[in-house]
Amino acid sequence: MKKNNNILLGHGSGGKLTRRLIEDVFAAAFKNDLLAPLNDQAIFSLPPGRLAFTTDSYVVNPIFFPGGDIGKLSVCGTINDLAVGGAEPAYLSASFIIEEGMEMDELSEIVRSMAETAASSGVSIVTGDTKVVERGKGDRVFITTTGIGVVRDSVDLSPSLIRPGDAVILSGTIGDHGIAIMTRREGIEMDVPVESDCAALHTLTRDMLSTGGEIRAMRDPTRGGLATVLNEFAGSSNTAIAVREDSIPVKEAVKGACEILGFDPLYLANEGKLVAVVAKGSAEKVLSAMKKNPLGRDAAIIGEVRESPKGKVLLETSIGNMRIIDMLSGEQLPRIC
Amino acid sequence: MKKNNNILLGHGSGGKLTRRLIEDVFAAAFKNDLLAPLNDQAIFSLPPGRLAFTTDSYVVNPIFFPGGDIGKLSVCGTINDLAVGGAEPAYLSASFIIEEGMEMDELSEIVRSMAETAASSGVSIVTGDTKVVERGKGDRVFITTTGIGVVRDSVDLSPSLIRPGDAVILSGTIGDHGIAIMTRREGIEMDVPVESDCAALHTLTRDMLSTGGEIRAMRDPTRGGLATVLNEFAGSSNTAIAVREDSIPVKEAVKGACEILGFDPLYLANEGKLVAVVAKGSAEKVLSAMKKNPLGRDAAIIGEVRESPKGKVLLETSIGNMRIIDMLSGEQLPRIC
Repeated sequence: MKKNNNILLGHGSGGKLTRRLIEDVFAAAFKNDLLAPLNDQAIFSLPPGRLAFTTDSYVVNPIFFPGGDIGKLSVCGTINDLAVGGAEPAYLSASFIIEEGMEMDELSEIVRSMAETAASSGVSIVTGDTKVVERGKGDRVFITTTGIGVVRDSVDLSPSLIRPGDAVILSGTIGDHGIAIMTRREGIEMDVPVESDCAALHTLTRDMLSTGGEIRAMRDPTRGGLATVLNEFAGSSNTAIAVREDSIPVKEAVKGACEILGFDPLYLANEGKLVAVVAKGSAEKVLSAMKKNPLGRDAAIIGEVRESPKGKVLLETSIGNMRIIDMLSGEQLPRIC
Repeated sequence: MKKNNNILLGHGSGGKLTRRLIEDVFAAAFKNDLLAPLNDQAIFSLPPGRLAFTTDSYVVNPIFFPGGDIGKLSVCGTINDLAVGGAEPAYLSASFIIEEGMEMDELSEIVRSMAETAASSGVSIVTGDTKVVERGKGDRVFITTTGIGVVRDSVDLSPSLIRPGDAVILSGTIGDHGIAIMTRREGIEMDVPVESDCAALHTLTRDMLSTGGEIRAMRDPTRGGLATVLNEFAGSSNTAIAVREDSIPVKEAVKGACEILGFDPLYLANEGKLVAVVAKGSAEKVLSAMKKNPLGRDAAIIGEVRESPKGKVLLETSIGNMRIIDMLSGEQLPRIC
């Protein structure tokens, strides 16, 4: 295809233009034996056992941001939903809703980014779809990825298993993704630019599960941030979760941006972090495994599970006060992922 | 939720409003044990063997049309991609990209329609996602469904297996979906309104496969229509496919609308039809099984596979001429599915 051309409605027709787009852009980048026949479905076998199945649509704006782009995000995000479910990611599908007029070069760059992220994570994108909507009925590109993974035999994760006394571990700094998107979107210049933490977490969860420690539940704090995940955990297990503000790692640049913009890092989206609730006796072992993985270098025990107040999340502030941290209400940052 | 309210950006925040939307609208309608924990992934076991995996985004406009709506379409379409791959559909995921301001009642109606279609097809929607984009950055609702199915042991389908001498079977009338969408979109009044053929085809493919006949390949002629599928088959198998115009069932109302609107039914989208290429010796047996299923009542052998001209599709017209039928080029009807 010649350079600098644009997506036409005909690229979504199902005819010749669609075929060419699929062959030249998608199949060329995602290249694998299962995708190659370009059938409407991929057929494969997986090891016996339980499967994990997850889907997410990505509508992030801007589509290119410090530390990633919508393509990388769409692959990492779905891998992460498999990983925190205790699964080894195996196969992904990718479906594109493209706005008429999008530059072909931008689409190709995003697709290349997806292909690189998938390859470096050991997963294959094996089936997909492309639709085109008229100018003004979409916003360049929305991507929906769906993943299948294989759940390890010994794994049994569920927020309902969380018990008073358990430790709460966070894998690293919070707020990086939210601030990276927000500063880029608003054109805010920063002395130390914040990059998105966008990363695939399956090697980290693998290392954690390999310790044999009693991990109750894991979740990646994306939209809604750490505060929302902790509230979901407290709600599902009918316990209280108490965390110490001082123990939650936040980069100085993120703190600074939050002060200027009026955001609370507890509610900012992350795309390469996870929260785990672990039995007290396993906490140090799991934490130590996390710290050995570059994705968990800054991991920390940030609090513990208590009996009450049931369903609530408590934050012990740096000056020693306790306050209740609710789920995100309303909208803090639209289209963050 | 109170009636006549609208989708807000906050419904995509990942916080309280998202949670309420998921619980009140999605989980309430899709109700099943795998979805119930509202984790970011569903975990299940499937019988050993090969799996089929397929995804499609639905951007049809209008979202409600004679014979269906975007919800029904999104479930049937993905079931059909599994079915024509020789799989029994098992689980679906559903991801929604909603435009700010969409009426909650409309969304609920679409979700109910998905739930009903899934239930009557014996599949469960077990995981999902919701994103909200600003007014003017989407078009009410786009839905991406992804399906997993179990491929029967004996099944081996691929267009590359198509051989000269094989018979080409079409399961029923063509063009119904395309005309239903087009007439509704353009506000064209017809004496006999055409309804979309939108239907889940897995019982039909099950009946066909149960004959034990030698089925080479199946595909559902959606975007691009019958002409495009036949071209894909001829191209993948390096054969010629010759079909007789007279043998291709087209409803009178569809013929009439095509004449008025200047469309060729061969290129119109279908959402409840399939084309199968079957070994000559199995054709009558497979056809007879199809005719016993209401979804294949009008099934017909419409042509056969030949040695040459390789990669081409030939149409013998009603007046005895032969012409080459190409894939759809350009765009006939945007946003047909």
